[in-house]
Amino acid sequence: MQVGFIGLGQMGAGMATSLIRAGHELTVYNRTREKAQPLAALGAKVADRIADACRGEVVFTMLADDRTVEGVTLGGDGVERHLAKGAIHISSSTISVRLAEKLTEVHARAGQSFVSVPVFGRPPVAATGKLFVVAAGQKSAVERIRPLLESVGQKVCVLSERPRDANLLKLSGNFLITAMIESLGEMLALVEKGGLDRRVCMDFLTSTLFDAPIYKNYGGMIVERRFTPAGFAAPLGQKDVRLVLGAAEDLNVPLPLANLVRDRFLRLMAHGGEQLDWAAIGDLPAVDAGIAPA
Amino acid sequence: MQVGFIGLGQMGAGMATSLIRAGHELTVYNRTREKAQPLAALGAKVADRIADACRGEVVFTMLADDRTVEGVTLGGDGVERHLAKGAIHISSSTISVRLAEKLTEVHARAGQSFVSVPVFGRPPVAATGKLFVVAAGQKSAVERIRPLLESVGQKVCVLSERPRDANLLKLSGNFLITAMIESLGEMLALVEKGGLDRRVCMDFLTSTLFDAPIYKNYGGMIVERRFTPAGFAAPLGQKDVRLVLGAAEDLNVPLPLANLVRDRFLRLMAHGGEQLDWAAIGDLPAVDAGIAPA
Amino acid sequence: MQVGFIGLGQMGAGMATSLIRAGHELTVYNRTREKAQPLAALGAKVADRIADACRGEVVFTMLADDRTVEGVTLGGDGVERHLAKGAIHISSSTISVRLAEKLTEVHARAGQSFVSVPVFGRPPVAATGKLFVVAAGQKSAVERIRPLLESVGQKVCVLSERPRDANLLKLSGNFLITAMIESLGEMLALVEKGGLDRRVCMDFLTSTLFDAPIYKNYGGMIVERRFTPAGFAAPLGQKDVRLVLGAAEDLNVPLPLANLVRDRFLRLMAHGGEQLDWAAIGDLPAVDAGIAPA
Amino acid sequence: MQVGFIGLGQMGAGMATSLIRAGHELTVYNRTREKAQPLAALGAKVADRIADACRGEVVFTMLADDRTVEGVTLGGDGVERHLAKGAIHISSSTISVRLAEKLTEVHARAGQSFVSVPVFGRPPVAATGKLFVVAAGQKSAVERIRPLLESVGQKVCVLSERPRDANLLKLSGNFLITAMIESLGEMLALVEKGGLDRRVCMDFLTSTLFDAPIYKNYGGMIVERRFTPAGFAAPLGQKDVRLVLGAAEDLNVPLPLANLVRDRFLRLMAHGGEQLDWAAIGDLPAVDAGIAPA
Repeated sequence: MQVGFIGLGQMGAGMATSLIRAGHELTVYNRTREKAQPLAALGAKVADRIADACRGEVVFTMLADDRTVEGVTLGGDGVERHLAKGAIHISSSTISVRLAEKLTEVHARAGQSFVSVPVFGRPPVAATGKLFVVAAGQKSAVERIRPLLESVGQKVCVLSERPRDANLLKLSGNFLITAMIESLGEMLALVEKGGLDRRVCMDFLTSTLFDAPIYKNYGGMIVERRFTPAGFAAPLGQKDVRLVLGAAEDLNVPLPLANLVRDRFLRLMAHGGEQLDWAAIGDLPAVDAGIAPA
Repeated sequence: MQVGFIGLGQMGAGMATSLIRAGHELTVYNRTREKAQPLAALGAKVADRIADACRGEVVFTMLADDRTVEGVTLGGDGVERHLAKGAIHISSSTISVRLAEKLTEVHARAGQSFVSVPVFGRPPVAATGKLFVVAAGQKSAVERIRPLLESVGQKVCVLSERPRDANLLKLSGNFLITAMIESLGEMLALVEKGGLDRRVCMDFLTSTLFDAPIYKNYGGMIVERRFTPAGFAAPLGQKDVRLVLGAAEDLNVPLPLANLVRDRFLRLMAHGGEQLDWAAIGDLPAVDAGIAPA
Repeated sequence: MQVGFIGLGQMGAGMATSLIRAGHELTVYNRTREKAQPLAALGAKVADRIADACRGEVVFTMLADDRTVEGVTLGGDGVERHLAKGAIHISSSTISVRLAEKLTEVHARAGQSFVSVPVFGRPPVAATGKLFVVAAGQKSAVERIRPLLESVGQKVCVLSERPRDANLLKLSGNFLITAMIESLGEMLALVEKGGLDRRVCMDFLTSTLFDAPIYKNYGGMIVERRFTPAGFAAPLGQKDVRLVLGAAEDLNVPLPLANLVRDRFLRLMAHGGEQLDWAAIGDLPAVDAGIAPA
Repeated sequence: MQVGFIGLGQMGAGMATSLIRAGHELTVYNRTREKAQPLAALGAKVADRIADACRGEVVFTMLADDRTVEGVTLGGDGVERHLAKGAIHISSSTISVRLAEKLTEVHARAGQSFVSVPVFGRPPVAATGKLFVVAAGQKSAVERIRPLLESVGQKVCVLSERPRDANLLKLSGNFLITAMIESLGEMLALVEKGGLDRRVCMDFLTSTLFDAPIYKNYGGMIVERRFTPAGFAAPLGQKDVRLVLGAAEDLNVPLPLANLVRDRFLRLMAHGGEQLDWAAIGDLPAVDAGIAPA
């Protein structure tokens, strides 16, 4: 399939790599062109303008936040202007429910399809095509792009015909991760201050009750206070919690645990944590307990 | 080994069964004697008095709470009085750090050993000898009882020489479970009110990011609002959070997420939730959101 | 002074009344014209269009929220377009810090002054000129309008030359009120469930330690569960907490108590509380405790 | 009246002074005898033993916590043993609801009366007889001691015939103070980080909306970060929050704001705040915001 791909950050580059390996013809675009080189080496065409990435029947966007996605999609040089009627915009960015609703309408008015396809997994997983993928959008559109989704993901969940549903589920998943980080951080503060060995406790719990890679991975980072380099930077995590709380506010759903996590991020930012992995909020309970430096 | 076993609730009966199956000679005691019948059928002697369960080199206690453990251990008819010098009291109850410290001293003064051996797992797991076991106490004592521990557990973690360390880790593990319940509950309230299918969302998340039996198990209960019969009753969960917060207070460790969970339990109790599984706190976010009955 | 006044809700009408009584010539405008009648009866001119309220050297706006203020101020028929160079826009609405910053720039570019003049007090107080007034803006502009401010307020605090400072202080004050409501609500839930007389407890505390009208006023409403008719409607309170949290987020300031209050409002809204006074969140602790209907 | 007075800390000494000034004959007792000297100088007899303070028809106790009150009241050398039948034990300490219930029973069995008479006010207020006083206990007993209560208080609220009711109200009042501190602290963190003048903001709010001495007093301390010497030490405040939460737990009343305050105290203690005034928790929001040293 002729596929455009806009946004070659770590996640986007990994996904584009998987698509090329699966035999799709990619035209890639990134604001800073150098990031496209490794993909060119794998056979991708490199577009000079957004428009050039919109000539196929499908274009992916994988960008940092609402503002960027809106900038790339709307306006005179945007995806919506250049995409053919009947073509599909696959949005894999973690964006707000509201923006997903807006883009769904915008593309529908233009005779195009908007499908939300958020993904779970860190960059190395993206590059090996083993992401977890959620898709929501018009049934026919989702069916057409299924081979693409199976190229990037080990598991594809088709959720519903409303694109924004996939965004809400993605945000909910990221919320669960932050909740896990907070709970591990509080647990560690307690056992460490109680004189126990942090690592032994974490290893026991994450090899028994909570025997899942995500627990071991984040648990290990918090135990070792290893927050650089950031696999997923704290400001991105903070943004996701903001989007969760924004969606919850629109729906009148109180989420006290999400509030707690939101405050952790604000505090981290107030103390210069922009460059840290989002797991760094998991060390704040130890700061409160007087056993980690503020 | 000659083993006494006091406390034949669901967990205790399961553990005693595993010990008998592993070839140990058990003398069991329970305040209400009928609960001992199934074990008698498997070959256990049934003691009429606590004293009669204390004649071997080891006695287990597996009881509901601090008060009961204290009652059974201390006083004229208690374990400490009747246990031989050099014998070992294995405490598997989920008790407070403070009580573990007190019993450690009491038994040491009496020339006996106190070993804390809390376990993780629900009753059916106890009966098949597949619990996760933590042990803390004098090295020599722990080594002597290791065969017993391996009879009840699939995995034994020897933590330290301070018995109360094992209690703190047990409480920490239970705290992580309550945190998981809260996070799943908030997530479900959000997606359900957002018009998504609760079950589909839960199944996706617990078969991808959070692919662990404990997530599937509790996630399923909350999705289906299936809180009776209680596998682990809410008042016991509430007690454990109280003990976590008590230990944290003694150590000056703020635990905001534990506070949140504590309030959930208080609210559940204020609305008649004594008979429910502790997972029932996971439905309160949906009550707050106006999508579940109060 | 020739004064325009836009926005004749309960607060605006009261302030306009005070201005007329103090001898100023008012031209008033309201989207639904009927609300202007009582002021016409006092001698105000009634404008048909926003433009007609902008012909003097000063125009007040007192409107519901950011969107309305932005709509009235900007665009082809807006205040900024019609106000003379050198004239002053006095904004008394409770708006966001960000909007205040934007309007400051907009008016500066147009050669006009923007002064933020939020007020504290309920409608009856506005009509008697006894509000508490905060003003921030260019020194010369604030001095020129001081007689107007003294006509509506019993006390005027000139804060700084940055208009948005006054908005931040206004939001902070409203946050303190919501915190007070929450604290009184929790206190009442505790004493009532403990078998004490709610009213006696409230009367004692608000005539001793907390002997201030605001405590007595809100305390009385919560004790009597008297939340209609709304003096200040819950959605407005909710909006203010949202603005507080928005400002705090921009500044990286965690506010856990504001989060708690935010959740109270969301829950109230999820249960149909749009028509209630914002003091109604003070009954939610009693709901949680099982002593008030959900 | 012949009055015993046990416990001559700052508050007790002040109250005893007021009683002497009002013409009552006092016999005072304190564990460290030197503290009795100033009262001896005013005419009090100084008792060597608790028993000697229990020979009149009334004895006050004003002590630090449950443990001390229990120690002084029960046991061979305790108040209960030495007080005459028909005599009255007036307990002014801030103790738990549970202990008040226990002492009510103990004294009733001994044919004595127990009246809870907690007081509000700081030491200088106690010495001038201007405290706010709550009394609960048998009607006849309360009537007999009313002249004493009026000697120490400017206002006496007779609450009910159950002594513990007065303790619950006292704890509730202290909770309101901690809630006020937290709210002022969050407000100040916000305005300070927003570039406003802390003092100006506080002065404005506490001379308008919150024009009450308690707001001015605590507000001033937090603005100036003046937490030593402690008027009321943080560990005492922490104890009171613990008692509030304990009472609430017994009654199944969730108090999320009390939890928040509890965590503030734990954090203060974890960072060496034992000597600070309890208002010091009001600086923690500024620490979180990165504008006060940790």
